[in-house]
Amino acid sequence: MESLFKTIVIIGKYASGSDSTGIQSQLLELAQHLTQKKINIFIESKTHHSGKFEAFKSIDLEDVGKEADLAIVVGGDGTMLGVARALVNFDIPLIGINQGRFGFLADLNTSNMLESIDEIFVGSSYKDKRMLLNSKIFRGSKCIHESLALNDVVVRSGSRLIELKVSINGRFLHKQRSDGLVITTPTGTTAYALSAGGPILHPELEAISIVPISPHTLSNRPIAVSSKSVIEIDVVDMDESYLSVDGQLKVPLELHDRVEIKSAEKMITLLHPKDYCYFEMLRKKLNWG
Amino acid sequence: MESLFKTIVIIGKYASGSDSTGIQSQLLELAQHLTQKKINIFIESKTHHSGKFEAFKSIDLEDVGKEADLAIVVGGDGTMLGVARALVNFDIPLIGINQGRFGFLADLNTSNMLESIDEIFVGSSYKDKRMLLNSKIFRGSKCIHESLALNDVVVRSGSRLIELKVSINGRFLHKQRSDGLVITTPTGTTAYALSAGGPILHPELEAISIVPISPHTLSNRPIAVSSKSVIEIDVVDMDESYLSVDGQLKVPLELHDRVEIKSAEKMITLLHPKDYCYFEMLRKKLNWG
Amino acid sequence: MESLFKTIVIIGKYASGSDSTGIQSQLLELAQHLTQKKINIFIESKTHHSGKFEAFKSIDLEDVGKEADLAIVVGGDGTMLGVARALVNFDIPLIGINQGRFGFLADLNTSNMLESIDEIFVGSSYKDKRMLLNSKIFRGSKCIHESLALNDVVVRSGSRLIELKVSINGRFLHKQRSDGLVITTPTGTTAYALSAGGPILHPELEAISIVPISPHTLSNRPIAVSSKSVIEIDVVDMDESYLSVDGQLKVPLELHDRVEIKSAEKMITLLHPKDYCYFEMLRKKLNWG
Amino acid sequence: MESLFKTIVIIGKYASGSDSTGIQSQLLELAQHLTQKKINIFIESKTHHSGKFEAFKSIDLEDVGKEADLAIVVGGDGTMLGVARALVNFDIPLIGINQGRFGFLADLNTSNMLESIDEIFVGSSYKDKRMLLNSKIFRGSKCIHESLALNDVVVRSGSRLIELKVSINGRFLHKQRSDGLVITTPTGTTAYALSAGGPILHPELEAISIVPISPHTLSNRPIAVSSKSVIEIDVVDMDESYLSVDGQLKVPLELHDRVEIKSAEKMITLLHPKDYCYFEMLRKKLNWG
Repeated sequence: MESLFKTIVIIGKYASGSDSTGIQSQLLELAQHLTQKKINIFIESKTHHSGKFEAFKSIDLEDVGKEADLAIVVGGDGTMLGVARALVNFDIPLIGINQGRFGFLADLNTSNMLESIDEIFVGSSYKDKRMLLNSKIFRGSKCIHESLALNDVVVRSGSRLIELKVSINGRFLHKQRSDGLVITTPTGTTAYALSAGGPILHPELEAISIVPISPHTLSNRPIAVSSKSVIEIDVVDMDESYLSVDGQLKVPLELHDRVEIKSAEKMITLLHPKDYCYFEMLRKKLNWG
Repeated sequence: MESLFKTIVIIGKYASGSDSTGIQSQLLELAQHLTQKKINIFIESKTHHSGKFEAFKSIDLEDVGKEADLAIVVGGDGTMLGVARALVNFDIPLIGINQGRFGFLADLNTSNMLESIDEIFVGSSYKDKRMLLNSKIFRGSKCIHESLALNDVVVRSGSRLIELKVSINGRFLHKQRSDGLVITTPTGTTAYALSAGGPILHPELEAISIVPISPHTLSNRPIAVSSKSVIEIDVVDMDESYLSVDGQLKVPLELHDRVEIKSAEKMITLLHPKDYCYFEMLRKKLNWG
Repeated sequence: MESLFKTIVIIGKYASGSDSTGIQSQLLELAQHLTQKKINIFIESKTHHSGKFEAFKSIDLEDVGKEADLAIVVGGDGTMLGVARALVNFDIPLIGINQGRFGFLADLNTSNMLESIDEIFVGSSYKDKRMLLNSKIFRGSKCIHESLALNDVVVRSGSRLIELKVSINGRFLHKQRSDGLVITTPTGTTAYALSAGGPILHPELEAISIVPISPHTLSNRPIAVSSKSVIEIDVVDMDESYLSVDGQLKVPLELHDRVEIKSAEKMITLLHPKDYCYFEMLRKKLNWG
Repeated sequence: MESLFKTIVIIGKYASGSDSTGIQSQLLELAQHLTQKKINIFIESKTHHSGKFEAFKSIDLEDVGKEADLAIVVGGDGTMLGVARALVNFDIPLIGINQGRFGFLADLNTSNMLESIDEIFVGSSYKDKRMLLNSKIFRGSKCIHESLALNDVVVRSGSRLIELKVSINGRFLHKQRSDGLVITTPTGTTAYALSAGGPILHPELEAISIVPISPHTLSNRPIAVSSKSVIEIDVVDMDESYLSVDGQLKVPLELHDRVEIKSAEKMITLLHPKDYCYFEMLRKKLNWG
């Protein structure tokens, strides 16, 4: 049976600026495997630069959208986050292969990757659509920053308590004094938001979770709202604070900055083997008996 | 302007078996107010029996569905829960009037009730649809109990830790040892589930929240899933346990009983004044600043 | 070198009513090992009755105090709790041998038990003194129950929320509505209290921790007080409630019962190998990295 | 009856760098009241500079130890923290007068201050001794910072997760990845540590509480150890982190810095009216019904 995907880009964790040396052999094994299947392949340029990939074409991450119909990512959840943000507008699905212990997003591992990929190629896959968040920072009336997040957008203090005024769809929710606020997709609920005391939201829930970080008022509890909501956060008191996107971008905030967060227009598709089970992943990652 | 509602039943907290004497004058004031508006009114029979309502027709709670097109409940959240379960299949909306401090569900209070009701009667209202849960207990292959819940269904221990096996849509979630498990509608997330450490879910979220009670495994955290889910709970180890519905019904469980929980087919409609705000209610009830 | 202990009783988990068959060979191995060392040994009578111990003297648990100067317990933490309560007034130290995975209290396991015991016998041991709680139930002016607890005393609801009035040394702490209250020794802080959200207290802290179970008021947080404190709990509102001692005794409570809890006069001594480390035990039991 | 205190210094919140204008009249009223009682008074120099105190002697905070036998602080808990750190080595007790809502430490308010002070002056007082923490930062073998804290010492991240290795009395506790760690006195357990999920420790407990901030491993729970403990924290992985002392001093940390924390040699004494009750203060500040 022929692969459903004709042009595939392989992206190593080098794409996220990491300088790992451990995945060269997997990348090569994967590239050769795909070549044998007559698939047209590219290697993302930083990954290409990291090793002996002269036999393969190189492509910059920002050009992937024009060429490929699938991206295979070899790295960890962090690499997946960056690639998802970069590719979400191009309708290119992702397969994640984890080096080391498996991740929440990168669910294949190097021992079973070829077999699993072959299955997915012939259509035996679980299509897992995940929402992203769009966040904008307004300083006065001007938008000074815009970005996408697959996990979370965090407004947080750089030192002491900050005070945030939160509104949802124009209706006042609360003013809260805390170390900050995590605004998370269902995907992000198993990441930082979980450490901050937030609930797990199943990825198929169309919801955004708002999780306070060490709130001064003990009854300030996590709250989940519809993914159609627009969340506005005004920084009303602070010494120092910043916006953190997927834990990977950090943008300093000033007093009276306003952050607007809503679901992004497009979703990213993760491809898993047919027998993928979200709950099994939770059990393994969270050591549930 | 004429009232949208022609036949209204007034239900006092006596309907839920309570023996309050404090609300006689409000009930009478309300009944007279509606009579003046040429509305056909009934008084729920236990409420009717509680005081001097000879001038008004009496009706049993189970017959309300045949006659009335609106129910006005004077009591607290507990009374609202019982009436909602009783009326959900009849498409009769509810207005809740709280005696004492205002509730999560009964949001009008006796000081502003007539004014607010008049507004609602002429269509200036906020229609707030709330899902209920349907729960069944299977003993072997036989269904030995079925009920509806507006807040929550709790499987809980009567003494020591119990062990529950939880599946969602036929997929295994986990086995957990704990004091029990709260399965809650968004409405119920501000009730018992909140005390047990669960998140708040906005009522418009189509979700069911699963909150462990004092779980033995510390990473067993609350998880919210789609309201289309079917949740199965097998009692795999126990000394003593029971099912609790809205904290109002209590059904003893036996070892190997299986509880099946899903969203009920019908929703109940709460009518609020036009300017009702869910977030304002949270702020007041949870003392947020 | 001669053993510091001349007369030792061996107690299997049968003493706590358990009907395990898995520890016969360990018990026998242990008894023979001690006999070879010319130690005078007894087998606790229920344990004696459980297998082929005709060659050894039998002794009832309540008589152990008259004869033995050490008790070796083969079972789990549950067995240790029961034996500690039974022996605390006799100044007999305990060694705990766990079958299966190791426990918080029974820290030796069957693979290294003989070696560790030999070390302890010649004085190379860590003496770990643990406080117990004394709890009394007063109905009117009459004390209707008194017991000791090594882990915890729990006043808890049998169904709905109960309301408890708590005083410490005669000073009012709070009235709280909850599923109940855990009063725990430092030893008990890694047991049920931890599931209920309480902190870990190091065993050398002279403290009692008070942990609310699913409290209605979200700011009702765990509080630790001096072990010299007398804690009084009045059951001011309930449908059904009971006192639980170490999760092993269960005493029904009535409305207006008063529970008085303070540290017991005597402490129990656990003997561990010299290199015992409490923190290592925490790391292993709680899967810290 | 004569005052037990002959020389008293009055310290306004100006001492902590605050530029409040609201407490001038209270300060003056207080100074005049003390003068009438023939007490020798000083006004702390920054406070003196803030208003019309020409009639009174000025004294720098660092010289208070040589002259005064009591300090009366008019401000909030923040001012109390700073003054306690400055005066702890001089055995000068503190009285705290709160402007606005009363605090955890500054428990008198301006409406009852004169009356309460008069009582305390004649010996009718509750002496409330509070421990402080001494913290040192070692860079290599060199101590680059040393300070005292009445509430807490926090090692925390300036951006992403940091990894800390914690030892107690030279024994390894754990490595933890988190936003940081709060090391707190009993006094500090009602401050930041409470927001981070820590327990309340009664001030008379000789304990130090260690509270993780948003730990990655969900079983990393707060732990309290003896106040005789020496706690060592090694910063083993970080992007950016700092030490925060009472939320008032902030010292940047570098990778492999080692923080050593133990109880300070001296305690500070707070003087309260005779009928002071710690639990009453908790009830009021935490809104326990």
